[in-house]
This record gives sequence, C-alpha cells and structure tokens, in this order.
Amino acid sequence: MPGPDVHILSAASALPGPAVDNAALARRFGMDALWEQWVDVFIGTKTRHLAVDLESGEIRSSLTDLAEEAGGKALAAAGLGPKDVDAVVLGTATPDRLMPATVNMVADRLGIDGVRTFQLQSGCSGAVQALDVARQIVLSGNGRRVLVLGGDVIARFYDLTVDLRKAAPAELVSFVLFGDAAGAAVVSADPAPGSAVVRSLFTRLVGRGREPGAVLEWFGPVDRHADRPAATEDYKAIEAHVPPMTEEVLHELLDATGWKETDVDLLLPPQLSGRMTRLITERLALPGALDISCVDDAGNCGNAIVFLQIERALATLEAEQRAVGISIESSKWIKAGFALEGAGRKAAP
Amino acid sequence: MPGPDVHILSAASALPGPAVDNAALARRFGMDALWEQWVDVFIGTKTRHLAVDLESGEIRSSLTDLAEEAGGKALAAAGLGPKDVDAVVLGTATPDRLMPATVNMVADRLGIDGVRTFQLQSGCSGAVQALDVARQIVLSGNGRRVLVLGGDVIARFYDLTVDLRKAAPAELVSFVLFGDAAGAAVVSADPAPGSAVVRSLFTRLVGRGREPGAVLEWFGPVDRHADRPAATEDYKAIEAHVPPMTEEVLHELLDATGWKETDVDLLLPPQLSGRMTRLITERLALPGALDISCVDDAGNCGNAIVFLQIERALATLEAEQRAVGISIESSKWIKAGFALEGAGRKAAP
Repeated sequence: MPGPDVHILSAASALPGPAVDNAALARRFGMDALWEQWVDVFIGTKTRHLAVDLESGEIRSSLTDLAEEAGGKALAAAGLGPKDVDAVVLGTATPDRLMPATVNMVADRLGIDGVRTFQLQSGCSGAVQALDVARQIVLSGNGRRVLVLGGDVIARFYDLTVDLRKAAPAELVSFVLFGDAAGAAVVSADPAPGSAVVRSLFTRLVGRGREPGAVLEWFGPVDRHADRPAATEDYKAIEAHVPPMTEEVLHELLDATGWKETDVDLLLPPQLSGRMTRLITERLALPGALDISCVDDAGNCGNAIVFLQIERALATLEAEQRAVGISIESSKWIKAGFALEGAGRKAAP
Repeated sequence: MPGPDVHILSAASALPGPAVDNAALARRFGMDALWEQWVDVFIGTKTRHLAVDLESGEIRSSLTDLAEEAGGKALAAAGLGPKDVDAVVLGTATPDRLMPATVNMVADRLGIDGVRTFQLQSGCSGAVQALDVARQIVLSGNGRRVLVLGGDVIARFYDLTVDLRKAAPAELVSFVLFGDAAGAAVVSADPAPGSAVVRSLFTRLVGRGREPGAVLEWFGPVDRHADRPAATEDYKAIEAHVPPMTEEVLHELLDATGWKETDVDLLLPPQLSGRMTRLITERLALPGALDISCVDDAGNCGNAIVFLQIERALATLEAEQRAVGISIESSKWIKAGFALEGAGRKAAP
C-alpha cells in the first residue's frame, strides 16, 4: 500500500427518539406475549430507534437530521470545525431525495462548503465503502481530513396501517429487525490521542450470477401505484451465506495485516439481528476478542451500524490493541472489512 | 498532485430507442406548430432518446440495460475484458432500485466480480464525481483500471397521461429538456494510443446557504400517495448562476494546469439545453476552442452527458491537444471540471 497511513480520529452516532422495545411493538400492532417471546428467541433484537412516531405515523427525523447530528458530534470529538474538513462522504440506501444528495444538505447544515462531497448508494456495506472512499482521498493526497457519514431512515417503508396479525412472516420480521440511525467518523492523514490507524480496509462485490438477497424499491410519480413489493429479503439465503462470507473476510484481513487470530482484541461482527450476530461470533471463535455489537439495542440500522460499532471500539481500544470489523451486504452480495489498531490515549502526532 | 498520472483510455455511450424530435413530442401531446417553434428557439434542443415508449408507455430500457451497453462498449474500445477491471464506479440520480445498487447489477452482467464497486448518488456532476473516485483509486494504488459509468433514466417521472396543453410551463419544459442515456469511460494508470491524460479534475460543493435549484423526490410505500411534487426546477436560478459558475470552473482549471485560454483546443461545456449551452460557450469566448456538445441531439441526459462529450472529444483529440470539460449541478450547486491532454493516435505506454 503506497502513501501514508490513514487514521480514524473519532466516531459518533445519532438515534431518533426513545428506544422502542418489543413489548411496545407488540402493543402497537396488537400482537400477543407469544409473539414477543418469538422475537426475543428467534431474532434476538431487544430495542430499536424509529424515525417515525408509532402512534401518530409522523416522520420526526430525516436522514439529513440524523447525519447532521452524528457528523457534528464526530467533528466536535475530533476537535475540528467545518473549515477543517477537506471532503464529506455519506453512505446510505435511503437518501431523503434523489436530488440534491443528502450529503450536500448535511454539509450545508454543518457549515462545510467548497469541498468534494460524495454520496454512496448502498446497503449496510456502504458505511465501509464511504470509509474506503475517504481513505482513497487521503492516500491520493487530495485531502487530509474527511468527514464520513452513514445512515438509513426506513420510515417510508413502514406501513403503520397494516394488520400485523394477518401479515406475512417476512413483513413482521422487517418491523422487528430494522432501526433508523446515522453515524459518523473523521478520517485523517494524522493520528491523534485516542485515534485508530486503518491497517487494512476493503469492499468486494461477490455478486456474479447470484440473485440479490435483499431488494429495496423506490417509486416515481408514474409507478407509485404499481403493486410490486417495495422490499423483499431472502432470509434463507442470508442465513446460509453471511456466516461463511464473514469468515472469508476475517481471513482476508488477517492475511493483509499479518495478524493471527489470537491478536484480535475487538471483533465488530455483521449486525443482522441479535441472534444471527451471536451465531456468527460463536462460529468465528476468536479466542481473545471482545464482541462489539449494537444490534440488540439499535436494530439493523443499515449504513449507520458500522459507525456505532466504531464509536464503541474507539472508546475501549488501547495502544496497539487490534480491532477487526466485518460487514456483509446481502443485496447483491458484498464483502467488506477493516482492521484498526489503537494509537492509545496519549498518542501524539 | 502526488502519484502517477491517470489516463482515460476510451469512452462510449448507449442511447435508448430512436431519436424523438420536437415534432414527435408535439404530435404525441397534441401541441401545435407554435409550441414546436417555441422549443426550437427558447430551449434549442432538437431531439432526445427516451427509455419509455411514447405510445404504449412501456419502459423499454433500465439504467442497468443502458449502463451495461455503454460499459461493454468502453471496455471493448480499450481492448479490455472483465478480468482486467479493478473497480467499477457509477454516477446516477435515478438508480433502478435503492438496493441492490445498479452498479452491482451492471458488473454482474459484464462479468466483473471480486472488486470494489461504488455508486454515487448525484445530479449531472455525478459523472465527474465518478471519474474523480476512479482517479483516487488509481492514485492511491488501489487499482490500475477502473470502469466508470454514468447515466439516468427518468422514465418514471414522465406522466404520459398528462394533458400538456393544460400543464404548467415547467412541466412542458421537463418533457423537452431531458433525455435518457448512459455513458462509460475506462480510467487507467497507463496510457494507450488514443488516450487522454487527466491533468486536473475536481468537484466542489458550493451550496452553503443556497436553496436547491433542482429537486427530484422518490416515494416509498407509505408516502406514495403524498401530493408533494416529484420534480421541481428553479430555471431562473439556473439561468442566473450556471454561466458565471462555468467561468469560475474554467479559470480554476486553467490555474491548476498552467494553461492559457488560447491553449484550449476543445471545450466540453455544461449541457442544460441547446440554447443555454450556446450562450455559455459564447460567454466563455475561448478563441481557439471547438465546442463539443451533445445536448442538441441527446437532451440533458444527466450523468451520461459528460461521457457522451468525452467520447466525441477522444475521437478528435490529437497528441498534446487540450480539452476542458465543465459540469455544473444545480441541485445543491456543485462545480465540476476536468482538463485532458491527448496522448495521440500512436502513443505507446
């Protein structure tokens, strides 16, 4: 790898409204205690935050709102102002509009102007793609500090008028699995106390000849009355493919860094559901690694979740401690991973 | 600028169906000869290609279809196969779906797998953003050859049931101004006969405190019955701001390259409409520059148009000849530009 190292100075998150637990979902949709138990056991996600108010149906937070909050926090945590930012990169599957790109609305709110901005359209691995583009900008010498954002607001896919007792199982699952959130990180050419150096980072399409495992449609004025489904997931394919793909990413990261399995102090695993994440972590069986997961509390919040994990990882990562992050996107099957090493609390440039 | 030079080896385009002229639009929507004259004089766009069949309303081409065609042509023109591609980058305002990203569907069709893929959500300057991301990948050493794609299909915004005779002027204008298309280019670390070296390239958000000049909405299942407009343009703001912004980009490119106005052999100006493009070209008054415009024939085809211009430019650019390309995005106001220099027909690596 040519060029200088790249560092993550800070990370932050923004979660809309209060945590909504499974009992609240059950009450809202008239589901019984058995359903609550089923969610606890078979999905394993306890709470999530929703941009939509479950009672009124009002959408209270846009992606712009959440990304502004997360971005502002990440900049403040890095001790930077808007003038210090050389580029902004946002990953999302659910932009507020097709145009203008949400990244540009967020930049305006944060007072960032006159710089490169990029918005990546992607499922959850868009978070790692955004970190990757930020890293290319720094490595190519086109910027020294990049604000990286990721998030999703899926409120426009929640039909609150649906009778969940009569809904298909997949529809039920969507209500439980997902959450709304945004996250942010500051990527820099220079380290700082509490920062982590990026030892390896990649994203890799592996979709050749494979059906998408997840599809999310948008509608225009002409086809808004079309009856094609807006969201479909192939949970069987996801359950079959994500665990082995996770192992492949882990080994690719270990090969790239020269680390051994025993060297990994923190594991940031894919965040599909509480249960799937635990199965994956058990399967990887990294002997000394602490699991950094947010899905139990925040649900699968798409392009935000990697930033939530990095935020928690930075808070505990000591000097020379090593973290491995893995994100698998089931839409057209993308493997993504990154390896971080702590600079320590007192590291100086 | 650190790192090696970056070269554009080839460019190609894909246009759906036959050219639709203003007379055909007039016939379809029951407009009279006066309207046709008005389009000729005040918009100046003669034909465009549409992904939707004007008679049946059927959408015949997706962005995936068009980008696959353009990408295949660009690879063939560069003498490359799918295994030679280290990354794929696509710019669009109108992806086929929110997930999977269209870039991944195109990569699958072209036989490209196992590499980085990025899809940029943007208005027309997404084409330059995609070239920029490809350039960062090459400059940072993360890839040697990148397939860059751009395109838009706005068929889902064309309500063919509308009575244009009763429609608002802005609605009329949209039907005339825009076209569907995709384009592609191959960006490489190595030159080849007929390639152009990228001497400068940038994109720059200048949206601070400014209202968007163009908005394009998408609808989800919950808000598909919302009555907010799907597309709005502030043509007065566009007409006021795009010409001076174009001049600013030109001067920034000349400063970055050290070229003088008399050094520019080819000018690739913004492609809003035939008339606006001619006004801008006259205003820039580059003494020796040939104007490379496609908007008269292809309409404003969003993220495709820059590739259509580069395709024409590469066909005429001789060794050491210089081309300047300028793209202005009115959505949240983005300035984008690039400077190319011909390697000549017989250039060898």
